[in-house]
Amino acid sequence: MSGFFETHKATLDKALEVALSRDYWSPYPEVASGKIYGETAKDDGLAAFKSNLGKAFALEGHPTDGSTVGAESSPYGLELNIKYPKASPAQLLEASNKAAAKWRKASIEDRVGVCLEILDRLNRRSFEMANAVSHTTGQAFMMAFQAGGPHAQDRGLEAVTYAYAEMTRTPSSAVWTKPQGKHDPLVLEKRFRVVPRGIALVIGCATFPTWNGYPGLFASLATGNTVIVKPHPGAILPLALTVKIGREVLSEAGFDPNVLLLAADEPGSEITKELVTDPAVRIVDFTGSNAFGSWVRENAGGDTQVYTEEAGVNSIVVASTDNFRGMCSNIAFSLSLYSGQMCTAPQNIYVPKDGIETDEGHKSFDEVADGIKIAADKLLGDPARAGGVCGAIASDATADRVKAATGLGEVLRSSTAIEGMDDARTATPLILKVSESSSDAHHQEQFGPISFVVAVENADEAIERASSLAAEKGAITAAVYATSDEVLDRAADAFADAGVSLSCNLTGGIFVNQSAAFSDYHVTGANPAGNAALTDAAFVANRFRIAATRRHKAA
Amino acid sequence: MSGFFETHKATLDKALEVALSRDYWSPYPEVASGKIYGETAKDDGLAAFKSNLGKAFALEGHPTDGSTVGAESSPYGLELNIKYPKASPAQLLEASNKAAAKWRKASIEDRVGVCLEILDRLNRRSFEMANAVSHTTGQAFMMAFQAGGPHAQDRGLEAVTYAYAEMTRTPSSAVWTKPQGKHDPLVLEKRFRVVPRGIALVIGCATFPTWNGYPGLFASLATGNTVIVKPHPGAILPLALTVKIGREVLSEAGFDPNVLLLAADEPGSEITKELVTDPAVRIVDFTGSNAFGSWVRENAGGDTQVYTEEAGVNSIVVASTDNFRGMCSNIAFSLSLYSGQMCTAPQNIYVPKDGIETDEGHKSFDEVADGIKIAADKLLGDPARAGGVCGAIASDATADRVKAATGLGEVLRSSTAIEGMDDARTATPLILKVSESSSDAHHQEQFGPISFVVAVENADEAIERASSLAAEKGAITAAVYATSDEVLDRAADAFADAGVSLSCNLTGGIFVNQSAAFSDYHVTGANPAGNAALTDAAFVANRFRIAATRRHKAA
Repeated sequence: MSGFFETHKATLDKALEVALSRDYWSPYPEVASGKIYGETAKDDGLAAFKSNLGKAFALEGHPTDGSTVGAESSPYGLELNIKYPKASPAQLLEASNKAAAKWRKASIEDRVGVCLEILDRLNRRSFEMANAVSHTTGQAFMMAFQAGGPHAQDRGLEAVTYAYAEMTRTPSSAVWTKPQGKHDPLVLEKRFRVVPRGIALVIGCATFPTWNGYPGLFASLATGNTVIVKPHPGAILPLALTVKIGREVLSEAGFDPNVLLLAADEPGSEITKELVTDPAVRIVDFTGSNAFGSWVRENAGGDTQVYTEEAGVNSIVVASTDNFRGMCSNIAFSLSLYSGQMCTAPQNIYVPKDGIETDEGHKSFDEVADGIKIAADKLLGDPARAGGVCGAIASDATADRVKAATGLGEVLRSSTAIEGMDDARTATPLILKVSESSSDAHHQEQFGPISFVVAVENADEAIERASSLAAEKGAITAAVYATSDEVLDRAADAFADAGVSLSCNLTGGIFVNQSAAFSDYHVTGANPAGNAALTDAAFVANRFRIAATRRHKAA
Repeated sequence: MSGFFETHKATLDKALEVALSRDYWSPYPEVASGKIYGETAKDDGLAAFKSNLGKAFALEGHPTDGSTVGAESSPYGLELNIKYPKASPAQLLEASNKAAAKWRKASIEDRVGVCLEILDRLNRRSFEMANAVSHTTGQAFMMAFQAGGPHAQDRGLEAVTYAYAEMTRTPSSAVWTKPQGKHDPLVLEKRFRVVPRGIALVIGCATFPTWNGYPGLFASLATGNTVIVKPHPGAILPLALTVKIGREVLSEAGFDPNVLLLAADEPGSEITKELVTDPAVRIVDFTGSNAFGSWVRENAGGDTQVYTEEAGVNSIVVASTDNFRGMCSNIAFSLSLYSGQMCTAPQNIYVPKDGIETDEGHKSFDEVADGIKIAADKLLGDPARAGGVCGAIASDATADRVKAATGLGEVLRSSTAIEGMDDARTATPLILKVSESSSDAHHQEQFGPISFVVAVENADEAIERASSLAAEKGAITAAVYATSDEVLDRAADAFADAGVSLSCNLTGGIFVNQSAAFSDYHVTGANPAGNAALTDAAFVANRFRIAATRRHKAA
């Protein structure tokens, strides 16, 4: 066979180890350096990205009705005009089904080897991917490199690792020897094999197409399912490149490249619903809004496993701090990164109305709010840095939402366009002040660079309001600032009950938005923000089943 | 705390080991011997069982509306007249929810210790349980002892074992150290905790209330959920005893006994649907018919995890054999055991119309059919042995179905009552001959002692028909007899594709009906006979989620 498994065995072994220790590790360097990726890597990646523009995107042997589709537009204003092969759901499902015959019977090692090789090749093309992600999602280049490249690859590898661990937990064969007193024992020889569910659909999102798409893609692929990738119509290229690379590896390994398919479409004529409801689709991985997530969960077939990451309202509880400046800077950065368009970005910052105790003495509610505003202004004062942190706004809808949101509270900080990015759609964080008792706007997700400093009675109410909202509307992250262990413990209990993981007193180079593969579970699956976590055993264990044979064995 | 975990730690360690090796093992002796269970165990068990008859079944502190409920009747004709506390779904859910507060926060070890202690006490009461199972399900005493006692306990232990492995796979804490080049590394301290889903409902079946009920019950309990057990109205006592013992252990360990509740009801006024559809119920384990299973899957809340074992049509493919007598005896026993009322009992025996090659030379289709009939007659010729193998028929509906089925084909063997069991509802196997091309009756499940010897063109058609039927209607078991490795391999592929495990050439003391904990997965979850397997990681991994906290750690 291809030898891919042997090539990447050491990486897999290390990944299996860190998935248990949950220490930091990555085989894919996050530093976009020529010393690591090759001196010409940056230029080569840009050139490779540009070579896709204004053209038909070739996927050899891919099903198509002969026409093309695609209407992506860069939030930075670059003309993309990339056309992808168009195929009907029926064509995709037929090709996927046909490709399944050999893939489902491949050995665990062969399939996992293919996945690891795909990830390795994706890593080598991280600069090209960075441009593709940046010009579809609006992420700033460095973030697009990291989150769209190495960090997404980490999450893909994590899924492959869990899938491998789960599939190999049952031995391929076993001997069962049951004593029979004075008689000879009963001896059976048993063989176990992995049976995949069938066709898996991965529904990509507009903001993190690779980071959120890879876990489901690689988990389904490794476990023997064939995969149809349905990108968000606004962010096709990153997943199209992924599919293309995957198909090359599949072909080289002797498999039908249609094991991995691209279901490209355009706004207004999406084929997602037709795919979700087809009984041949047995797994759906969805990242996107609660509204569509709920539709997917309700309309997918009864035999279809659905894994979702939806959305919620993320909160920060500010009870007290021994590092006021560090806290304000940390929060300001979290609000600004990718202009609040991360599913992990905080929206509500609960602060006691009578203020808090800090290392700089007592700070009133307004002083805390001002501290965050000032930190944001400082962070974003330099336009070049602002652009590098905020990037661009992915969609007109989000830009419109920011404008409309100014009326939702007292404006603490206005959102502005970023100087010097005239072709791009940009918006720095809008921060509003509201009172818990008189406002309702912050009880909904306001997607984008919109946040609220919310006045509450005290820390207890802050914890109670934030955790209740998480339980009711969902939340992917939560943070707390408190100098008292008792308050931290209370917050930990409340947010755990609400099914949210909690970051405590982050003041340094770690932000509540960040979630590290092999260590942080992304989404818990325990509140309305999603029914699954990236990545745990539950995310992979039901993508396949075990079928056995048994027969007498001569003693 | 209670020390239960330490007491049973060695049992758990061994269970963790065999779940991986999949060799034979059980800590609960299946031999109903006084030498093992105590010289007076049999009499004591009978007396304990009898002490329940004609009385109110006491469950101290259990929610109730003050009235009682229960209308079980013994298939052996014994007057039962046991009355259980009646409680409304609202009362049950309120008590379950109240009991959850402490249980969900208990340590993994404390919860697992409670489960292991319950299983140990159940084991010591296996004779009492045998009588309870026999007089509700109709199983013969020895089978009721084994399947209702030790083998059910094995399956419960297996579920606890998988739950423990899954919960402890994530460490309770970890240190995450990310290098920062020349700077100090970023160091985070992380803590992980198990968050249960909520209230779990276990819906018991009429034929194997403990064997099929324990896996879901113990998997949910161990992972921190509170459990409401809703027995089939015809087989309450075995699960009522289980709940009673469980509540005693919970109380001794300092927990609210309402962590484990009994939802008893009567035919015609079942409360199952009300419980299934309540949004507070977050896990449902169901064993029963496809019709009600389908209702449960479709009507349970969107956030509710549903695990089902439903039903299907189990087949045997007869292609050739080097042990004709052994084959016929083995099949005859499989058809007779508990009068075919096992979900694992074969229904269709596919035989080439031109006969097969055997160690006794060529046998025509009729000779093969006769061989099975003669073996059944021989097995059941002695009424005492017939009673011991067949037991009684659980329900009037099944008895009626047997009578109605005589018209579905050419009668090869008539079903008869068993001599000397005049007070009991009995029926030995009805065996019919049909032709695949002209019959349709065998394409449905005909629950009970009803089977078909089906004439097909050849072994290929036998494999194709049996496996297609399994894929379409579901199947829990399959068997093949063939002397050719090529045929065995083909059958293994076909049945694996249909999601059925396959027994090959069973001629000795192992029968296709039997499924051993820690080694055989019961149901695959890959065809309509059920969406889950007993027991794999998928069965436990989504009964809880992981919530984390993280904070800076001084380097």
